Amino acid sequence: MPVIELGRRAKAASRVLASAPTALKDAALLRAADLLLERAPGIGTANEADLAEAAAGGMAAGPLDRLRLSPARLAGMAEGLRTVAALPDPVGEVLDGWKRPNGLLIERVRVPLGVVAIIYENRPNVTSDSAGLCVKAGNAALLRGSGTALRSNLVVAGILRDALGEQGLPEDAVILVDDPSHETAVEVMRLTDHVDCLIPRGGPALIKSIRDNATVPVIIDGDGNCHVYVDESADLDEALTIVVNAKTQRPSVCNAAESLVVHEAVADAFVPRVADVLGGQGVELVGDAAARSRSASIGAAADDDFAREFLDLKMSVAVVADLDAAIAHVNRFGTGHTEAILTRDLDAARRFVSEVDAAAVTVNASTRFTDGAEFGFGAEIGISTQKLHARGPMGLRELTTYKYLVWGDGQVRG
Amino acid sequence: MPVIELGRRAKAASRVLASAPTALKDAALLRAADLLLERAPGIGTANEADLAEAAAGGMAAGPLDRLRLSPARLAGMAEGLRTVAALPDPVGEVLDGWKRPNGLLIERVRVPLGVVAIIYENRPNVTSDSAGLCVKAGNAALLRGSGTALRSNLVVAGILRDALGEQGLPEDAVILVDDPSHETAVEVMRLTDHVDCLIPRGGPALIKSIRDNATVPVIIDGDGNCHVYVDESADLDEALTIVVNAKTQRPSVCNAAESLVVHEAVADAFVPRVADVLGGQGVELVGDAAARSRSASIGAAADDDFAREFLDLKMSVAVVADLDAAIAHVNRFGTGHTEAILTRDLDAARRFVSEVDAAAVTVNASTRFTDGAEFGFGAEIGISTQKLHARGPMGLRELTTYKYLVWGDGQVRG
Repeated sequence: MPVIELGRRAKAASRVLASAPTALKDAALLRAADLLLERAPGIGTANEADLAEAAAGGMAAGPLDRLRLSPARLAGMAEGLRTVAALPDPVGEVLDGWKRPNGLLIERVRVPLGVVAIIYENRPNVTSDSAGLCVKAGNAALLRGSGTALRSNLVVAGILRDALGEQGLPEDAVILVDDPSHETAVEVMRLTDHVDCLIPRGGPALIKSIRDNATVPVIIDGDGNCHVYVDESADLDEALTIVVNAKTQRPSVCNAAESLVVHEAVADAFVPRVADVLGGQGVELVGDAAARSRSASIGAAADDDFAREFLDLKMSVAVVADLDAAIAHVNRFGTGHTEAILTRDLDAARRFVSEVDAAAVTVNASTRFTDGAEFGFGAEIGISTQKLHARGPMGLRELTTYKYLVWGDGQVRG
Repeated sequence: MPVIELGRRAKAASRVLASAPTALKDAALLRAADLLLERAPGIGTANEADLAEAAAGGMAAGPLDRLRLSPARLAGMAEGLRTVAALPDPVGEVLDGWKRPNGLLIERVRVPLGVVAIIYENRPNVTSDSAGLCVKAGNAALLRGSGTALRSNLVVAGILRDALGEQGLPEDAVILVDDPSHETAVEVMRLTDHVDCLIPRGGPALIKSIRDNATVPVIIDGDGNCHVYVDESADLDEALTIVVNAKTQRPSVCNAAESLVVHEAVADAFVPRVADVLGGQGVELVGDAAARSRSASIGAAADDDFAREFLDLKMSVAVVADLDAAIAHVNRFGTGHTEAILTRDLDAARRFVSEVDAAAVTVNASTRFTDGAEFGFGAEIGISTQKLHARGPMGLRELTTYKYLVWGDGQVRG
């Protein structure tokens, strides 16, 4: 079916879902969770076919693993839907309201966005994770997954559609684009009459394509070149623990630290220590001359190393003269994701959180906490690195907008 | 100077302005208001030159009037800056905050967007109106006005820059692109490294160019095909007053009504009456067959008349069978701006405000109230018809975003 027709159907479904009772939405999500487990054999067959084709095509071990719907991952998807069903419904919240001198009562009320498009790569669990959050927030989900996961995605999306239908909700509130060509991705990016918000979930190539092609409103889930700045007053034992955690606890994710910035007053004491411990955990360090002069195990940083998101056991190290230089370094090279300061100086902490421009600015804790679950949102659909609409971890609230209700009794404008 | 260099300068200035004390921002705005009046002769000379060139080029009377900086308009611009200076500073508001089980304190704090770009047409008063709002909200304003108003815009922007400099704030917090070619507009639309938000203020041609070219985040200030639906239970005397006000009080603006929808139960009673009164005020009516059968003064509607924003003394009229048909008509042809229902039936009002998808849904009042001043925002930079970030009238709050502050005492992720 043409993408524009899928968009039209999603839009029509979104109008029904926008007013759907919470109980029906929750029942559909719980039923979909059950169906994911009941239909595990069918999902397994589809997934094995995807895996076999991908392996035959030479897919590497990492992506192959992300493509696999193991029983544990399937259980996780079901549990994810149950978690979302248990969250409070964001729709209908009265955000604020006031009365005007002419008697008009103005209320600002939280409503769904409408049609949320998700373009994603490989991982078929994103199908149920994203659709579940969209449906709970009253949106239709228009899903464009990758060709590698098409068979798996079709079965999972079919389960969500069946579960919606069983509750009398429109099945078209979850639509998977079944032609995973490059052209359909671009079509989704340009469906201005039908898509209210596009959230890409993928790597730099996808983000670049979105920037080049998208004409619908987009929330960019971008890179995380996250810094940890060790201030002159930092507790260096605590700093060591935090830096090691931020870098090594899960290096492949966007909230892992990529850059270490050290105040020169503590560089002699801290850089050799942290270099030893990180080196012992297999982390490759590259740094500026001042960092290298403190540890022979730090290699020379290439020109763009300070700007890179390694997503690997690699980290850049810079030594700075003072807090001003640290803030300037972070604002120059950061990607607006998460930036941390480790300090015992309240003034330094206050200046850093005020002047550093990022979705999350963290004091004396690991960068790894910038995450929907860690923030207490229950679930997340991504982490925004842009400033419009949503910033940082995005949960149900970020999948909504608002409308104004204006209640009058005959007012006209003079 | 190349646009990218202007963007770089605006970005640098925005970092300073983001932490600037309210008192300094307000002092700069008040000083700029004074300077607008002190330097009225110089503004007048520049504006006369713009007007002369535009008149020689054959500009029509309407645009010529909007280009003119009359003493009254200059006084209005100064008063606008004083009004904005008197508004509460939105920056620094703690939107919410909570403590996690691991002891992390998470706060969500309102911060400026950064660099706000405004692309606008002809009217030089937009220069001070937009820049004033941006500066008060802690943003740098990157202004790209039209060539017709270049001399006027340069003088007005220069006043804002001087006023900022006098307070020790960065003059580059207000930058006017001094090359008003088509190319510079497109460059501004694609300054992804420097522009955090683009707000176009202009007609359909500008909006189309933005949709085609912009890669920076955009808030669309789009068309208003606003409907007034007269329900079967409406007070028809009140309805007559409201419809006439919504259509005729200022037909050239986006919140004027363009479409009248009437329940067939009251069509015999209402359509002839409203057609007489509107016709008497010079309004041309075009309608469907059911409307035309009720009044000989209603002409045949062309195919796209129900979708058009006339911005003139013209209105489409449709007769519908029931509330469902009214909601469907409004959602089909509306542009997401303002939609009104006139009714005495609470259930009908509740269904209409719930199911109609628009920035503002109005009950028993004129559509003309969707406006920053009428909503009590003190000033507005536009009216958003998109759903991301801001919807409806945009004041200071809508020129901000938020960041998360995460306060820990050594937390790492397990």
